[in-house]
Amino acid sequence: MNTDPNAPIGVFDSGIGGLTVAREIMRNLPAEKIVYFGDTARVPYGSKSRETVLRFSRQIIRFLLEQEVKAIVIACNTASSFALDAVRQEFSLPILGVIDAGTIVAAKETRNGRIGVIGTEGTIRSRIHEIFLKKLNPNVTVYGRPCPLFVPLVEEGWTHDPITREIAVRYLGELKEKDIDTLILGCTHYPLLRTLIQEVMGEHVRLVNPAYETSLELKSLLADNGLIRQGTDREEFPYRFFVSDLAEKFTMFANTILPYDVSMTQKIDIEKY
Amino acid sequence: MNTDPNAPIGVFDSGIGGLTVAREIMRNLPAEKIVYFGDTARVPYGSKSRETVLRFSRQIIRFLLEQEVKAIVIACNTASSFALDAVRQEFSLPILGVIDAGTIVAAKETRNGRIGVIGTEGTIRSRIHEIFLKKLNPNVTVYGRPCPLFVPLVEEGWTHDPITREIAVRYLGELKEKDIDTLILGCTHYPLLRTLIQEVMGEHVRLVNPAYETSLELKSLLADNGLIRQGTDREEFPYRFFVSDLAEKFTMFANTILPYDVSMTQKIDIEKY
Repeated sequence: MNTDPNAPIGVFDSGIGGLTVAREIMRNLPAEKIVYFGDTARVPYGSKSRETVLRFSRQIIRFLLEQEVKAIVIACNTASSFALDAVRQEFSLPILGVIDAGTIVAAKETRNGRIGVIGTEGTIRSRIHEIFLKKLNPNVTVYGRPCPLFVPLVEEGWTHDPITREIAVRYLGELKEKDIDTLILGCTHYPLLRTLIQEVMGEHVRLVNPAYETSLELKSLLADNGLIRQGTDREEFPYRFFVSDLAEKFTMFANTILPYDVSMTQKIDIEKY
Repeated sequence: MNTDPNAPIGVFDSGIGGLTVAREIMRNLPAEKIVYFGDTARVPYGSKSRETVLRFSRQIIRFLLEQEVKAIVIACNTASSFALDAVRQEFSLPILGVIDAGTIVAAKETRNGRIGVIGTEGTIRSRIHEIFLKKLNPNVTVYGRPCPLFVPLVEEGWTHDPITREIAVRYLGELKEKDIDTLILGCTHYPLLRTLIQEVMGEHVRLVNPAYETSLELKSLLADNGLIRQGTDREEFPYRFFVSDLAEKFTMFANTILPYDVSMTQKIDIEKY
């Protein structure tokens, strides 16, 4: 385990969605360095088996350890669901997923005990948020709704578009009928549709953004372990990005959502790890 | 090479889209048996490198040869583009892709020499249809338009939906302005949006469905090689389906688009081949 507070934080995802998590870490822990890995060669994870996703996660963690990270954030719902428990036991550094923090906040903040979750088909089918929420509070009722078009709509750049609004109205209609007061954005792309989803759901529904909550959880975990990077001196390249295949789409998307120019993305052979 | 006319035809795709090609073969060559492989563990191919897609294609062809197929149809635009030439030299049985037949028909049938192509980002970026079309007729002008939402819309089942129409109007608007008279459906999912695309483009635009054209090309290739299966006796399981990961979504989709019940899908370990 790397106990140097100057070491970077490792963040990984099946592709580009986890950049919303990296973005929240950049915002809430501006002194930290980040090594991001997007498994663009093997995306999406949602349709793959538990065993496969666990194998992929182990490979990526071995790669990140080679980059001497001090902690790891699994910024992918499927990998958090399938791999987090196992890799926490296998590796000695602090590892966070994106499901814990969001469900803790949702369970704490709901007033009527009716919580909605939106995500990809795979995430909703896995009922992973429901399992976590029920452990925290057996009395909550959880309503899941897959929204498979949201990811391609975000990747198309139509985040403030009448068509996306129309699709959101259709997807979210049944959750509105269920009278939920809290909605978990259970997919890393969805924070980019936050404004639109809030408008469709109404102001009385509390949206939970797991990317934001995870960055706060990371902050306190680093503090507990004496791993917070001190000072505000900026290195020239505090953020490094790696992918497993063709980097073009990744770089385009990164430049859309990050507040600075991502010019360098390095392709690595993840199967070697 | 298997020269038994009773042997099945191998059809493969990165996932479920190639089922539209299998469907056309079932319609136009009803006596033939089919072994279909969908690489659901490694879908999509569009974002992967040439080298990776070629390796995957070789593995799948080795698997299909084990099933004793007499001919192979690569029912995937990316694999047709990246692998067809190489595997034709490496393997001795007849192999077809989905790009040839459609571009031949388009080049022959256009009257004003203005041809549109729609497909995924990867297919359009590769300009593969344009390259084929220009070889057939250097005077044609080719306009490509990626339609990334069409695949998830089809998989959502919204093939006759006002939202899909609205998106089609937006995607196809610039092709209409270009005054094309021929439009190639350059993605295996798109034949399922055929009616809607025809309505948006207008009756004067000839839609070219490569799935259909490829089935006709296969028919004449089998005839040329004396490989047409004779008789109309139906075996109990003339169509067999294999996938590389979780079969649920595959089976659901297959049951939506095929005119009979697909109950059995077998998962195999494609990395072994």
